[in-house]
Amino acid sequence: MIPPDHPRYRSLLARERLAACAREGIVTPEGLAAHGRGEAFDYLIGERTTESALLAERTAAAMLLSSPSAVISVNGNTAALAAGSIAELQRASGARVEVSLFHRTGERVEKITRLLEAAGVGVLRGRAEPLLPLSHPRALCLREGIFSADTVLVPLEDGDRCGALVSMGKRVIAIDLNPLSRTARAATLTIVDELTRALPNITGACRGMGPGEGERLMSSPDNISFLRAAMDEIRGNLEHALD
Amino acid sequence: MIPPDHPRYRSLLARERLAACAREGIVTPEGLAAHGRGEAFDYLIGERTTESALLAERTAAAMLLSSPSAVISVNGNTAALAAGSIAELQRASGARVEVSLFHRTGERVEKITRLLEAAGVGVLRGRAEPLLPLSHPRALCLREGIFSADTVLVPLEDGDRCGALVSMGKRVIAIDLNPLSRTARAATLTIVDELTRALPNITGACRGMGPGEGERLMSSPDNISFLRAAMDEIRGNLEHALD
Repeated sequence: MIPPDHPRYRSLLARERLAACAREGIVTPEGLAAHGRGEAFDYLIGERTTESALLAERTAAAMLLSSPSAVISVNGNTAALAAGSIAELQRASGARVEVSLFHRTGERVEKITRLLEAAGVGVLRGRAEPLLPLSHPRALCLREGIFSADTVLVPLEDGDRCGALVSMGKRVIAIDLNPLSRTARAATLTIVDELTRALPNITGACRGMGPGEGERLMSSPDNISFLRAAMDEIRGNLEHALD
Repeated sequence: MIPPDHPRYRSLLARERLAACAREGIVTPEGLAAHGRGEAFDYLIGERTTESALLAERTAAAMLLSSPSAVISVNGNTAALAAGSIAELQRASGARVEVSLFHRTGERVEKITRLLEAAGVGVLRGRAEPLLPLSHPRALCLREGIFSADTVLVPLEDGDRCGALVSMGKRVIAIDLNPLSRTARAATLTIVDELTRALPNITGACRGMGPGEGERLMSSPDNISFLRAAMDEIRGNLEHALD
């Protein structure tokens, strides 16, 4: 057991949770490696929500609230780490939730759907069709879900898929700790923050959004400014790291 | 299949290999996440051997050649990614090889020993005893192996174990892509390079070591200078990354 006063308690707990979900087939080996990459960038960013990330989170909330058909795309790692936070965000934003997997099998979709439903998430069900401009089976999604959404929140998404959604004219909100990743660069808005910190912040911003605030937020900095701010944080943290 | 002309071919191949070894129980879920952290740092360092890393690799070769009882400590990730390179380094340096696992079970030790032997490595066998100043079962090692070694090469080692070996008075050579890790800071010499690039470089340096060169190398920069050089590389790479 990890002692709760361990300086990296949250990080170690997340790692344990993912390893357990990998044994159940909810998380893939590739998902574990991807989580490790995220951990490294979170370490560099200081394992905290930066000021610019918080602004991106409030902007994401404004985008979700202003969207007539927003969808949250959930993969194995997201379900394993944040099923409860997805349920909260769904209630606060009114967005629909679709399970969308890079390593897609019917069995994994079903397992993850059940995990989310047990946490109180309403999950879209139906027959997935190859509707995205990607090679099969990565093209699969629901016609009444991601395909017809105008805004898609993709926590922890692969770069090709993020680019495909943008090319379809959708507004794509990514949560990605690597400000240099293809996903971070391709998205309409990138939140450079750790998933379990970012989701409650978006939910809180949805709940507290004042009148006219959404419009102001959505006219705020463009994506590249958010990425530059994250890079500046990392460079600043590295400056004296070995002193 | 990954196309060989993919810009990140080597990295993707390594990830596939580890995922396959995870399914066989050679690599642990925690090992996959650790690999992901390494990938992130390798990306930041430019996925190439820096000049200072090459100097550290030549220094490591000098330390191994000058040591009357050097041991290479091999874990699951190392065996999965570099069994052949370990065999070559063993032949070039004369070092002994011991399997040493963070998540140790008799079955994993046996599987990894067989994987190494199939690649031509001579692996120490025997009854492991709790000889390291760590809690059981992480204290386990062979009396005629790591316990009595004067120099230990630990590719991809955990920080506590690296510190324990140093506290026993051993010269510890670490291969670690994170210049800020506890392992990197605790080791006598840290090679900040990716495993499958580092090992052949050490082997090459063992084979080409000129007379008197080893002494010169071993009087070269101390560990903190190697770590600072790696940090400078990373910061330089980040400087214009978003231009």
